[in-house]
Amino acid sequence: MIFIKRSNLNKLKIIYNKNKRSYSKLPNVLSNLLPTRTINNIITSSPVGAEIQVNGWIRTVRIQKNVSFASINDGTSVKGLQAILSNEVAKKLTTGTCVRLHGILVDSIGKEQTKELQVNKVEILGECDPTYPLQKKHHSMEFLRDITHLRFRSNIFSSMLRIRNSTMLGLQRFFQRNEFIQIHTPIITTSDCEGGGEVFKLTTSNITSKQEFFGKPVYLTVSGQLHAESISSYIPRVYSIGPIFRAENSFTSKHLSEFWMLESEISFITSLNDLYNFVENSIKYIIQFLLDNSYQDIDYFNQFIDNNLLNRLENTLKNPFITMSYNDAIDILKKNSFDISFGSPLQSDHEKFLSTTYCNSPLFVINYPKEIKPFYMRLNDDNKTVACTDLLFPKIGELVGGSLREERYSILENNIITKGLSLEDYKWYLDLRKFGSVPHGGFGMGIERFLLYITGLENIKDVIPFPRSAENCKF
Amino acid sequence: MIFIKRSNLNKLKIIYNKNKRSYSKLPNVLSNLLPTRTINNIITSSPVGAEIQVNGWIRTVRIQKNVSFASINDGTSVKGLQAILSNEVAKKLTTGTCVRLHGILVDSIGKEQTKELQVNKVEILGECDPTYPLQKKHHSMEFLRDITHLRFRSNIFSSMLRIRNSTMLGLQRFFQRNEFIQIHTPIITTSDCEGGGEVFKLTTSNITSKQEFFGKPVYLTVSGQLHAESISSYIPRVYSIGPIFRAENSFTSKHLSEFWMLESEISFITSLNDLYNFVENSIKYIIQFLLDNSYQDIDYFNQFIDNNLLNRLENTLKNPFITMSYNDAIDILKKNSFDISFGSPLQSDHEKFLSTTYCNSPLFVINYPKEIKPFYMRLNDDNKTVACTDLLFPKIGELVGGSLREERYSILENNIITKGLSLEDYKWYLDLRKFGSVPHGGFGMGIERFLLYITGLENIKDVIPFPRSAENCKF
Repeated sequence: MIFIKRSNLNKLKIIYNKNKRSYSKLPNVLSNLLPTRTINNIITSSPVGAEIQVNGWIRTVRIQKNVSFASINDGTSVKGLQAILSNEVAKKLTTGTCVRLHGILVDSIGKEQTKELQVNKVEILGECDPTYPLQKKHHSMEFLRDITHLRFRSNIFSSMLRIRNSTMLGLQRFFQRNEFIQIHTPIITTSDCEGGGEVFKLTTSNITSKQEFFGKPVYLTVSGQLHAESISSYIPRVYSIGPIFRAENSFTSKHLSEFWMLESEISFITSLNDLYNFVENSIKYIIQFLLDNSYQDIDYFNQFIDNNLLNRLENTLKNPFITMSYNDAIDILKKNSFDISFGSPLQSDHEKFLSTTYCNSPLFVINYPKEIKPFYMRLNDDNKTVACTDLLFPKIGELVGGSLREERYSILENNIITKGLSLEDYKWYLDLRKFGSVPHGGFGMGIERFLLYITGLENIKDVIPFPRSAENCKF
Repeated sequence: MIFIKRSNLNKLKIIYNKNKRSYSKLPNVLSNLLPTRTINNIITSSPVGAEIQVNGWIRTVRIQKNVSFASINDGTSVKGLQAILSNEVAKKLTTGTCVRLHGILVDSIGKEQTKELQVNKVEILGECDPTYPLQKKHHSMEFLRDITHLRFRSNIFSSMLRIRNSTMLGLQRFFQRNEFIQIHTPIITTSDCEGGGEVFKLTTSNITSKQEFFGKPVYLTVSGQLHAESISSYIPRVYSIGPIFRAENSFTSKHLSEFWMLESEISFITSLNDLYNFVENSIKYIIQFLLDNSYQDIDYFNQFIDNNLLNRLENTLKNPFITMSYNDAIDILKKNSFDISFGSPLQSDHEKFLSTTYCNSPLFVINYPKEIKPFYMRLNDDNKTVACTDLLFPKIGELVGGSLREERYSILENNIITKGLSLEDYKWYLDLRKFGSVPHGGFGMGIERFLLYITGLENIKDVIPFPRSAENCKF
């Protein structure tokens, strides 16, 4: 017999009834399909007295007179587990060592935790070289950015990753419960969407002739919007979560060359009011989702990064966001001695003044002049402005950009010509308005900008695992 | 007062108790945050007698002697809704027109549906030009691929997109319920991971000097594995779902230049057996999830694309996958007159024979010779093979590739040298083994290959919204 027999197979019970063609609904909690347990699982579900194995990394060792304590964690919880060891054993352990500890959970005397582990056996899985850069002391964010590959072992980055994970889940849940379907828009594209901004161009490493791989020049996407509209021209509620690229040569703490964006298109909405209410509700939903599901991590950032974080999130939930027109925004800026005139784009210091100083609230600025916005935004009846909104967040700047999309063929065609774009390039996009055009709108939200707001961190390079920006691409 | 007052605000009830710092758990079903409803929602939750509005597109119109019938859909369900109209109104409607119908839900006399809509008012939202290419007839997949931007309006593509959406949800649920966190590995990278395969190179469109944007050559990722390992060296269960790029100049029905891949890393597993059991369980979970949540769509593919589809999925659920060693696979191939020797890679016709003809089952081939596998795979005790597995699916070929990763510093270092790679390039990766190395493994699964299996479709270009392959990149 040549087939290999296996142990441990099919822990997942699949219940299938052939005659009825009915399938069991899947269980909410899976039986453990892996031979090990996470520390978070042990802390939350193992009772005192249980004999357990813990896998993780030594974070600190405190050797006292009669007994030693080690803090062990595996990045699944904020605090990890305290282990009680003999001094003899503890002396062999150093920060960063990967271990498996065997022992019994006991009531803790200390205030920091309710349970701790009375260790009776230690297996060292991976020793840690003494040059390990993450010792028990404060490390600056700059230092951690320098050791990108190891920074996930710091509390701040494991906490950030857990919040990032929850954000993905919250987004999924919000959109799915509102009957949206998740789509994937392409990364490689021939279109630059907005007609502005700098893009990355692709070549192949194996070009032997002058022939391009795709037969034409291609770029990394700066937005999946137009492609999403192609799908939402029949499936009315769609969203995508994917990477987006900008080749801007900027060195700020708010810009990345590669970042993740949520984009959504909604058919059959006819009013900008419906769009920005939806955006506000989506953001509030996700903030509450994070407070429900990642409270310990947010509390950690509240303690160590920004003491006003929880208050700010609470206020964001409780109060309605403010809305003002572009025209009113200009009036306010002029009255406050800014040198700006109607028809100019808002610069980041203008946006900062409006949302942080003047309103101290998330702020929808709506109805910008058509000249400073892309060709696809819907022309308002005044013939001067377009039905769009930028959502400005205090300290963060623009978090969301959205608009109704121009669904009228002749106006869209005219916009393309006026903006100096090629009708041939956008023939497919015009087709969407030729064959059963639908009133619709949509918006995009930068995931990393949102995470800045949620964590209180200040540099956008610290809320994405591997940041890419001008002159900065590590392995 | 310069702030704009808004109607319809805060439909989402946020319940927050400041004193207790406790937050309400979010409701399972949201109140409708949008002013319109989907057809699927109307079909599944509106009772006969309800006065409703339906938004959608006309799919067919049948004018009969006294009354007319129109089929209307919005891509949210397989069949849509049948509308009963006066002949006078029906004559103005053509396939593809976007409409809003007002009327009353009534019991249906026909067999095809239980409810239909007695229309009392029709609003035409977007007319459809008579050149509309999607008329009521059979369209070939090639033809639909030619009109990429409109093909989502065909039943087959809206059905595929709903299944694709469910696949994303099923993956999320499986990994989250197993305590994995979702991470994002970078798209732009300096590493080519496997040391083989052709990669896409990036330049910027605005290079004015000879300076590269990132200060060094960069590529589109062919795998996020090494980066994921950097995170799983502290957070033991991680997965990513993201786009992956291969610049292979192939024109097959199984290859794309841009595709989506699930990648997962699992720390503290020490046996290949644990890895492939986990893979098998994950695939079975998702298949059952799809049967639970997308049965109508899979049944549609069973009817129109592959009559054996449901049987095949049922068998995949019921039977254990088969496992054999690479050595045994070579023996079998030799005995069946294939010209292959120990040490050669398996070609696709070998894989096809083994999984489709010989086993007629999903098949894990394990323990390949170290020479034909990448440097990061863990060396077995025989010193000749590595602890890896390729999961071969009948008709599909390789669906999953996985391995234990080499966690021993000196062996890994030796592998890098032996494979002719640069120690300097992989210093960061070696660091992961220097500072608290952990036994671990992981795998990757091509989402589109999986969707071929789930839908019975034959060309991988038909299971991704916007396919990119050699000489093929539309807008």
